[in-house]
Formats: sequence, structure tokens, C-alpha cells
Amino acid sequence: MRKLMLSVVGVLAVMPLCAAEPAVAVDGATLARIRDAAMHSDWAMTNLAALTDRIGPRLSGSPQLEAAVQQVAATLRTLGATVQLQPAKVPHWMRGLEQGSLVDYIGRPSGITQKLHLTALGNSAATPAAGLTARVVVVQDYEELNKRAAEVRGAIVLFHTRFDQRLADNGEAGTAYGQSVRYRNGGASAAAALGAVATLVRSVGGADYRLPHTGNTSFKPGQAAIPAAALSAEDADLVQRLAAQGPVSLNLLLTPQTLPDADSFNVIADWQGREKPDEVVIVSGHLDSWDLGTGAVDDGAGVYAAAGVIEVLRQLNLHPRRTIRFVAWTNEENGGRGGKAYAAALGGKADKQIAAIESDEGGGRALGISAAVKPESLAALRPVIDALRPIGATALKHNEGDAGADIEPLQVMGVPGFSPLVDARSYFSYHHTAADTLDKVEPQSLQSQVATMAVLAYFLAEMPEPLPRYSIAQ
Amino acid sequence: MRKLMLSVVGVLAVMPLCAAEPAVAVDGATLARIRDAAMHSDWAMTNLAALTDRIGPRLSGSPQLEAAVQQVAATLRTLGATVQLQPAKVPHWMRGLEQGSLVDYIGRPSGITQKLHLTALGNSAATPAAGLTARVVVVQDYEELNKRAAEVRGAIVLFHTRFDQRLADNGEAGTAYGQSVRYRNGGASAAAALGAVATLVRSVGGADYRLPHTGNTSFKPGQAAIPAAALSAEDADLVQRLAAQGPVSLNLLLTPQTLPDADSFNVIADWQGREKPDEVVIVSGHLDSWDLGTGAVDDGAGVYAAAGVIEVLRQLNLHPRRTIRFVAWTNEENGGRGGKAYAAALGGKADKQIAAIESDEGGGRALGISAAVKPESLAALRPVIDALRPIGATALKHNEGDAGADIEPLQVMGVPGFSPLVDARSYFSYHHTAADTLDKVEPQSLQSQVATMAVLAYFLAEMPEPLPRYSIAQ
Repeated sequence: MRKLMLSVVGVLAVMPLCAAEPAVAVDGATLARIRDAAMHSDWAMTNLAALTDRIGPRLSGSPQLEAAVQQVAATLRTLGATVQLQPAKVPHWMRGLEQGSLVDYIGRPSGITQKLHLTALGNSAATPAAGLTARVVVVQDYEELNKRAAEVRGAIVLFHTRFDQRLADNGEAGTAYGQSVRYRNGGASAAAALGAVATLVRSVGGADYRLPHTGNTSFKPGQAAIPAAALSAEDADLVQRLAAQGPVSLNLLLTPQTLPDADSFNVIADWQGREKPDEVVIVSGHLDSWDLGTGAVDDGAGVYAAAGVIEVLRQLNLHPRRTIRFVAWTNEENGGRGGKAYAAALGGKADKQIAAIESDEGGGRALGISAAVKPESLAALRPVIDALRPIGATALKHNEGDAGADIEPLQVMGVPGFSPLVDARSYFSYHHTAADTLDKVEPQSLQSQVATMAVLAYFLAEMPEPLPRYSIAQ
Repeated sequence: MRKLMLSVVGVLAVMPLCAAEPAVAVDGATLARIRDAAMHSDWAMTNLAALTDRIGPRLSGSPQLEAAVQQVAATLRTLGATVQLQPAKVPHWMRGLEQGSLVDYIGRPSGITQKLHLTALGNSAATPAAGLTARVVVVQDYEELNKRAAEVRGAIVLFHTRFDQRLADNGEAGTAYGQSVRYRNGGASAAAALGAVATLVRSVGGADYRLPHTGNTSFKPGQAAIPAAALSAEDADLVQRLAAQGPVSLNLLLTPQTLPDADSFNVIADWQGREKPDEVVIVSGHLDSWDLGTGAVDDGAGVYAAAGVIEVLRQLNLHPRRTIRFVAWTNEENGGRGGKAYAAALGGKADKQIAAIESDEGGGRALGISAAVKPESLAALRPVIDALRPIGATALKHNEGDAGADIEPLQVMGVPGFSPLVDARSYFSYHHTAADTLDKVEPQSLQSQVATMAVLAYFLAEMPEPLPRYSIAQ
């Protein structure tokens, strides 16, 4: 999950459901059977383990991502789904060496340097092969950067903004992320424009275990990239404390490479609809991950929460009116090329795309559904919430933005978009770090996501008439 | 903190205090003033920051430890204490490169390897310069190791024992540590004796953020060392899961070096007693640390909890009957040479060593006192507990073992030993990792440790007659 999530969660409002019963068009007992089958299946967890344990990290352009495409495609074929691989050219950025050290500061004993824990950001340029040494300018925000513009030329800028874990603990993880990730996304570009030789950002995440959190940074078209890395929270605080006492100099060595775009694929697996097989309801997650952890919470969990929908339907031998289409998107993290390729292949005609669901906020327990639909469509979803009540996934929130980075292009074309609302309190503790590993996904939580997506997808695919179209802004 | 803590905490029993009032020989109002001064001083925290921020890690033999000796000595001189440096030759083991990868396992896509997060243990030998590759034997305990002895020759043994965080959460952190640390301490030697080419141990610690926990391992006299490392919890679990499916091969590259013993020093600072200056009550922590973090919780906090005692007495201009002697021990982590040098310098005569206090269980809040004294001496400590009641440090536990690795040699010679009882629930989440940094020490918790040690030390130094001697087994 790469994007500023403010749009996903921050602007939502809880919508009261209309008390009047809508005409029941989808059998509640069937929804209950789907829910129960999902809550008793260990298929998603078993296959998530196979993905993360046997392949591990899956950065765009890597042989691991290619292996994952093949593994997921094979797994979906065993379910009897019709599988196709949809090509997409993806960026190919490769991490290299990454070293940092404090080489001078007030009170430094002669001859002593201190190691910094950092990791390059996607799109970072390399330092000279011998590294670079420069003084540090620590800023809290863009306002301070601009005020101190005169100090920035030739310096390393550290954006020191804390992740607000208390907000995350209170159910506003996306808002907390949005507040800090803008410096990871845009800080390097802003500092480069003022002549900085490199940038650092305090890691965007909530746990302090000396873990740097990677992620993409973006430069303006035509702008030369500079070296950019994330510092662990502890190291960022250390640099800030030392800088408050006097001048601080750092040495950085980063050797990432940007190679020509690579071949990759969306994995698409169709579970044929019985009446309108050309109309599709998408269930999806993204298959690529960052390269530090094994991508279990971001977004292996989403991929198998979605694939689990097909497994449940196969188990119950249920074919709803429309096709349910599983998509494992490629390149969500540093390009979004998979989602764009899917939308582009539609040639502007998205009318057969009835709805799209994406899970990309980690493997936490499902708490309900976020729906980017016409507000007046919410009431129609009541049978879904009723069916999910026994597992506590009862929240139904209206979303005016994208419900997932990969389905955003479809939503712009008018496709109603959905995501499971999940408990994301600890998501940003692991997000984009080496600690994004299988043990962070609770089997029951993953089952609750499969149940939520399966009930919702079946309902949308079975409704006699599709929900009205709903476009979001690009 | 290196030692099996079972002896420190595991065998303690809460002793009921005698209801009868002992004769009050130390003024309670003075103890209260000491407590309050400690709770209002930021001196210890400020100086802990200077130690960890400006110097950082302080492994025996490193220039950082030497710089720390000078820094702490200078700081104690500013308090007006009489400072001496007591020489000790210390082991000089240096970490080098440390890399590991999974190179073969069932289901591995062709050409793909996975990085393992590991760190060499102290005393580890180096691998060949090109690394070594061998199959893995995963065992739960020594019993399984011995049962599977035939498989061990030529293999890498992984000791896979989980740290019991629930025990730690219930106030038994030392017991939890003791249960797993025996495999870090002795596993390499046991596996080497069976022909293993290297060993790994699941990290001894409670938080799962892909952090390996270093620490010492020991070989038998005359036994050749083999490469030995700690795997992060996540990686140990991954290897275990893959090994349950079929053969697993790892590649390890470790390049530590064992150099000739280096010069180091205990920093000793005396706060002169007014009547019996040759009788000393020791307040102490250890100055060396492992090399991954900045050694704030292990044991910078202990050093400054102890040094803070002197600062409080200076602030209040109080000189108790006996001398209060601050000691910052060298080389607790991988040799204990500081404590041994101090004891050896006594030439077998410890009669002027009235009591010894050490803080080495992290920077957590003080909950009371652990006392390795004659059981009948406990009641005499009641004024100390009464004085600490307002800050909640009311537990008084009897300890039959060592109250700190560095003061153990004194305790063997009959010196009553003490340690502050501290909240150690999160201690082993950071212990011996890169995440042992300043932010893990709460200023108020450190103040509570200073208060506890200061009240206790003043009391012991002011009592008309010393507590009876109490010897622990060697």
C-alpha cells in the first residue's frame, strides 16, 4: 500500500442505514453459508504461507515477482478458475548497498562514528560510489524547509515528522499515515529543488524497533533524482537531538539502480457467472511488495483474502449471476502499472465492470465495508452487513475517494469501488519494513477478510440489477 | 545484562515484613528528602543521553568503551567525587560481516534465495571467507539435539526455543530469559561437540520486529569455536516451517575476529563518608554494552541510576557515615572482567565492602528492592521501603543468588548484595539489539531507580552497624 490513505479512510462518514427493508434479491441463507465456509477454511492462510515462505519479497522487476505470478496463477487454476496473465511493463528499481553514519557532531569523541539504520526509498538516486558527506538540516515540515531554504544548498535534509500512533490506535491509521507520508513522497523532490544533495525522512510508521520503512519517493518530470532514504525513528531522533546542539555531518552510501522497465503481469482468474458471464465483479489485492519483508501484510494478505473468495465459491459450488474475477495486481507499490494496464485494456468501455473490491490495508480483522458508491446505494448493501453481523464486520462507511490504488482507474471510469474495513492499528508498525512477515497475519483475521469480501462479491454479482455507477475524481 | 537471570529473580520469595518497629537509626525525613530530590532531578537522564547519543555502542575493546570511561569519569569529577580508574584486561571480540540466506528448500523457485536477518554471537568463530553452505537441523532443546546427534555432523544446528513473553508480562522476565538463554549460551558448544559446522539460535527476546538479539556464547576450554549467530524470531520461524516440509540449506558468512585482550577500566568514584570513609557501599551499573544498539537500557540506565545517587547527595550536601562508592563496571557483557578485577584487588579482604548494589535489568520503573541478605536482615530494611512508598517501590524480595553479575564476586565473599526490582516487561524486547536506544528509557522511570538506589545506599551507609554478612554460592 503506497498511497496517501487520507482519501480512503480520512474523509469517510458512517452512514445510517435506512430502516425500511429493501426487497431481498439475494438469498440471505446463501450469504450465511458463504460467510461460514470462509470462516472455516484455512486455504487462504496456507497459500499465503506458500507465497511468503517460498518466494518472499516481490519487488517489481525481480525474479521473485515473476515467480509469484506463476505460483498464484497455478494456485488459481487448481480451483478451476479461468486464468489469464495480463501484461504490464513495470519500473525496475533495485536496492543496492545502503549505509549511513554520523561523522561529526558536538561532543563526538575523536575517531568515533555512529552507524545509522536507514533504507533507500524507491526512485532514490545513488550517491557517488565513495559515498557523500554533508551537513544536515533537520526540518519539521515544508514550511520550515522553505523558511530555511538558504541553508539547504549542498546539505542533506532530514524531514522529521512523527507518525501519530495514537491516531492509528484510535482507528485513524490512514489519517496518521497521510500526515507523515507526504514527506516521504514529496520531500526529496522539494529538497532537491532547493539544492539539497540528499534527503532523509523519519520512517513513516509506528513501532520503534530501529526499523527503517521504505516506500516510494517521486521527483518531478525532468527533475534529476537525488539520493533519498528513510531513517529509523530512533536514528532520526538522534540526529535531531544532536542537531539541536550544533552542526551535524552525515555520510551516506546508497547504490540503487534504475534499470529499463521489466515485463510483469496481472494475474486474472475468472469464476464464471451463470447468467451474465461477461459482467464482472472484481476481488483483488496486489501481488508485488517492497523488497525488505516478505510482503505478508502488504499485500499478500489482500491477494489471498481475494483468492479465498473463489475457493469458497468452489467449495460451495456457487456460481452467481455474474462472473467473479480475481485479480492479483502487479506493481502497486512503485508505479501502479497493473491497475493502469487493466483499465487501459478496457479501451474506455468499463460498462461490464460492475464493481471492484480491493484489500490493501493489511491482514487485520475485518470490521465492515468501505463503499465508494452513490450515497443512496448504501441501503441496498444491508443484506451484506446482516450476513456479516455474526463475525462483527458490521461497519458500513461511505468513501468518496479511491477504495484501493489499483482499482482507482476503474473508479474514475464509474465503477463502484469497495474495500474491506480492517483493523489497521498495527499495520504501519510493519508496513514497508523487513518485519512485514507471515506471523503478522492472524489466521482468523484473514478468514474474516475472506468472509467479508466473499459475501460482498457474491451479493454484487448476484443482484438482479447492478448498483448505479459512481465516479470518483482522478 | 548477560547472565541467566533465573538466579536473580526466579527464586525470589516475597518476605512479609515484621510488624514490630525496629529501632530507627536513620532519619526518615532525610530518606524522604533524598527520594524527592531524585524524583526531581534530570541529571541522570541528561547524562545518559550524553553517553548514548555522543558515544553510542560500547563493546569491550572498542574505542567507544574507552571514550565512555573518560566521559563518565569526567562527569563524576564534576560532582566532586574522588575518581579512580581501576584497570582490567578485557576480551576483544569484533563483529565483522554477517550475512545469511536460504539457498535451498522444498518449493524454492529456481534461482531465488532469501535473506536471513541474523547477527553473530560473541565468541563466534568466522566462517570461511567465501561463506559456508550446509543443511539445517532444527531442534527444540538439548534433548532433541542429543536424540538427533547422528544428523548433526556437518550441519548447521538451529535451536528453536521461543521466548515466553507472557511470563515476562507477568513479572517473570528473568525466568523467561533463563528458559531460552541457555541455548544462546551453551548451544554452540553442545552442537560443536557433535560435529556441527555452525549454530543458530532463535533470538532470545520478546518483540517480533525482525531484530536479531546478540549476546555471548561459550565454548569449553580447549574446544574450537564454530560460527554462531542469532536469527530474528521471524527468520527462525521461517526456517522451522520450511524444514518441516523438507531439507533446508543455508549459506552463512560471518567474519568476526578475536583480538588480543584490550585495556579497560572500572570507573570508581567515591563520595566520602563522614565517620568511616574506608567502609564503602557500592552503587553500580556496567558501562560496556553490546555493539548493536547504543546500550541505553543495557546498561547505560544502570550506570546513571547509580551515578545519580552521588548527584543527589551532592545536591543535598549529605555525607553518610560510610563512603558511597559509584562503580561503572567494565566488560559485564562478555567476560565480567571488571567485577573480577575489583574483587581480586581486595586481596581476599572484603570486610570494608559493606554492601553492593547493581542496576542491570533495564531502565524500567523501580518496583522495590531485591536483597541478597540474611533473611532475618530484611526487617531492618523497613525504613527504606517506607521512604519509597510514595513512589510505589514497595516490594522487598529476598534473593538467594547474585544481585548483579558484576557484584557476584563480592557476594561470594560475603558482601550483602542488592538490586532495584524494576519493571522488566519490555526489557527483553530491546535487550542486545540495535533497538536498545535512549528513547526506551522513560525519564520518570530512571528517576525512580535513582531514588530507590539513593535511599537504599544512604540507609546502608548510615546504619550504625552494617548488615550481617551473607555469602552466596560461587
